[in-house]
Amino acid sequence: MKNFVFQNPTKLVFGKGEIARLPELLPENVNLMLTFGGGSVKRNCVYDQVKEALKGRNYIEFWGIEPNPHVETLRKAIQLGKENKIDYLLAVGGGSVLDGTKLIAAGIASEKEAWDIVLEGYAPEQIAFASVMTVPATGSEMNGAAVISRDETKEKYGFFGDYPRFSILDPEVTYSLSEHQIACGLADAFTHVMEQYMTTTGQSRIMDRWAEGVLSSIIEIAPKIKENPHDYDLMADYMLAATLALNDFIRMGITQDWATHNIGHELTALHGTTHGHSLAIVLPGLLRVLKPQKQAKLVQYGERIFGITTGTDEERANKAIALTEAFYRSLGLTTRLSEEGIGEETIEIIAKRFNERGAAYGENQNVTGEVTREILESCLPPYTLS
Amino acid sequence: MKNFVFQNPTKLVFGKGEIARLPELLPENVNLMLTFGGGSVKRNCVYDQVKEALKGRNYIEFWGIEPNPHVETLRKAIQLGKENKIDYLLAVGGGSVLDGTKLIAAGIASEKEAWDIVLEGYAPEQIAFASVMTVPATGSEMNGAAVISRDETKEKYGFFGDYPRFSILDPEVTYSLSEHQIACGLADAFTHVMEQYMTTTGQSRIMDRWAEGVLSSIIEIAPKIKENPHDYDLMADYMLAATLALNDFIRMGITQDWATHNIGHELTALHGTTHGHSLAIVLPGLLRVLKPQKQAKLVQYGERIFGITTGTDEERANKAIALTEAFYRSLGLTTRLSEEGIGEETIEIIAKRFNERGAAYGENQNVTGEVTREILESCLPPYTLS
Repeated sequence: MKNFVFQNPTKLVFGKGEIARLPELLPENVNLMLTFGGGSVKRNCVYDQVKEALKGRNYIEFWGIEPNPHVETLRKAIQLGKENKIDYLLAVGGGSVLDGTKLIAAGIASEKEAWDIVLEGYAPEQIAFASVMTVPATGSEMNGAAVISRDETKEKYGFFGDYPRFSILDPEVTYSLSEHQIACGLADAFTHVMEQYMTTTGQSRIMDRWAEGVLSSIIEIAPKIKENPHDYDLMADYMLAATLALNDFIRMGITQDWATHNIGHELTALHGTTHGHSLAIVLPGLLRVLKPQKQAKLVQYGERIFGITTGTDEERANKAIALTEAFYRSLGLTTRLSEEGIGEETIEIIAKRFNERGAAYGENQNVTGEVTREILESCLPPYTLS
Repeated sequence: MKNFVFQNPTKLVFGKGEIARLPELLPENVNLMLTFGGGSVKRNCVYDQVKEALKGRNYIEFWGIEPNPHVETLRKAIQLGKENKIDYLLAVGGGSVLDGTKLIAAGIASEKEAWDIVLEGYAPEQIAFASVMTVPATGSEMNGAAVISRDETKEKYGFFGDYPRFSILDPEVTYSLSEHQIACGLADAFTHVMEQYMTTTGQSRIMDRWAEGVLSSIIEIAPKIKENPHDYDLMADYMLAATLALNDFIRMGITQDWATHNIGHELTALHGTTHGHSLAIVLPGLLRVLKPQKQAKLVQYGERIFGITTGTDEERANKAIALTEAFYRSLGLTTRLSEEGIGEETIEIIAKRFNERGAAYGENQNVTGEVTREILESCLPPYTLS
């Protein structure tokens, strides 16, 4: 096990009706700004619940943070926040609203240009922020990361900073999500775990088993949710899975990968592919190409998650990869670039970008532009059940 | 899943050599008191490492916190702390030293009598405290609980309060532990998980799997540690298991039990039985008596932990209980009262105490004095392999 430091101060307030506890969670005497996406919280009554809870308190609202939040939009929120001496932000929405809010919190606290903060990868200071999370997917509600897009250059990068002071997670607010949103959310959570799990074997027994516990749970609930998306306990399992998939709990003392995310972000930046969906395309390809170095873990994963106990190690690894892709497809997502109308031209752009920035991603820092090209090439052919 | 609030602010600093980071972890300008047990940290060089790290800083020392820390001892530390206007405590030792330090922190911050704080069950205020943890067992390094004994009346109770600001866990410091200490530590961690797991089924898929992940890991490492107690990775797994067994991570949205602890505390208070050892005696008895209400979870546990897949549900539950007791014995611990020279007289005292205080412990609040009598009676006969 590697040495590590762990600290996650976020207060998680989980369960039906908990939005009503906002008044006790938000400190008095703060200059509060609420941040929102495009309006879905008005349709699903979350906005009404928040307004009801905050009756008698002063706050301003900023609307319009889009999926894969654009720095161009967030700059407006930063300006509004500075003009109003805002010192506390409450994000009401999904991971994009909260990620955007993390950059707003950094922009208000600093004189730096917002995109520079993203490029530096770390927010030196942020005003306080919290969330009412409505879309289980990114884990942003209990971590210190955010991913921001720049529309004018079609770029997308992550940065790190503070954790939310608190996050309220009411599984009932997920009842209004579309099947595609749920599919992308489950794929996102599943892949977050894989980024922290599909690495060198034998680093930590418990971290392995905890990662496998989240993976198995997601695989188990996915088809049931399709049948019954208003089952409270199923949606609670889904919501908790998304949070625990990326809140540092399953990464103690182990190496991580994240090359799938680095590549997936490019697909989103260039084509607007939903984040979780981009991961469902890239991960199987990455596993096919990096199979030699990941084979031992693929064998463990295949046995513990899919019950694969026969065949040579390579056969078992192949089967585990095939079942991973099949799982993503079972959610209703495509897993091939050709199915999304993405072709060689995009692969060329991404490989060139990676080469230019001297990219070397992944656990072993060997996912270069050329390896990425190989990975994406393997995602081109039409899907066939292997 | 039940509604829940989770927040664990402790900074965990884990790995070899990390004691050297004390200067950056401890704030400047605090009036620091170090607290210790009986001197084992002098023999295993932890004291020297701490002294070296704190060179140039002022602090006072309090020595002599005993296993199952006595309020009588802690009162002296509280007085010393008040006299010296201490505002930060660093516990250097095992769970007893840290538990005692939690009460010292509460006593210094308040005018209340120390034992009254314990009886009230909650510390209204505490000065800051942190730990260098040397014995993986109680999980005190990352939770808000402490258990205190009162020597003059042979009583032992827990109370809740703040979490440590930070805890340094260096697996190398465990190399000097005795086989019995390790056995009791593993039994303690294992039982902490069982208190949070062996309850109603179907409350949370992930919590179940995370609990099972810790249980399986402990069962896997226990015999290997016996063979090789200086294997860094094994001891790191053990140390992390003990922390994760009782830091709120595996209890989100679920019911808990803790009746085994309530009964075990009495054995420790009356006979000085090491805490972990007392649990190894009580838990199998509790499972035998409460089998009807715990049968469904026992079947799940038997299958996932011990691979029991045949037989009627009752047979499977019986086998799971037998294998649990066999696991404790494999650590080198006895599991029967008769083996410890404890008999009917003690059972009578405990039943009477529970009856007098109207005890109704456990998930279903049905572990009364009379049920406790039944549980302890079932721990009387000599052990036979079933």
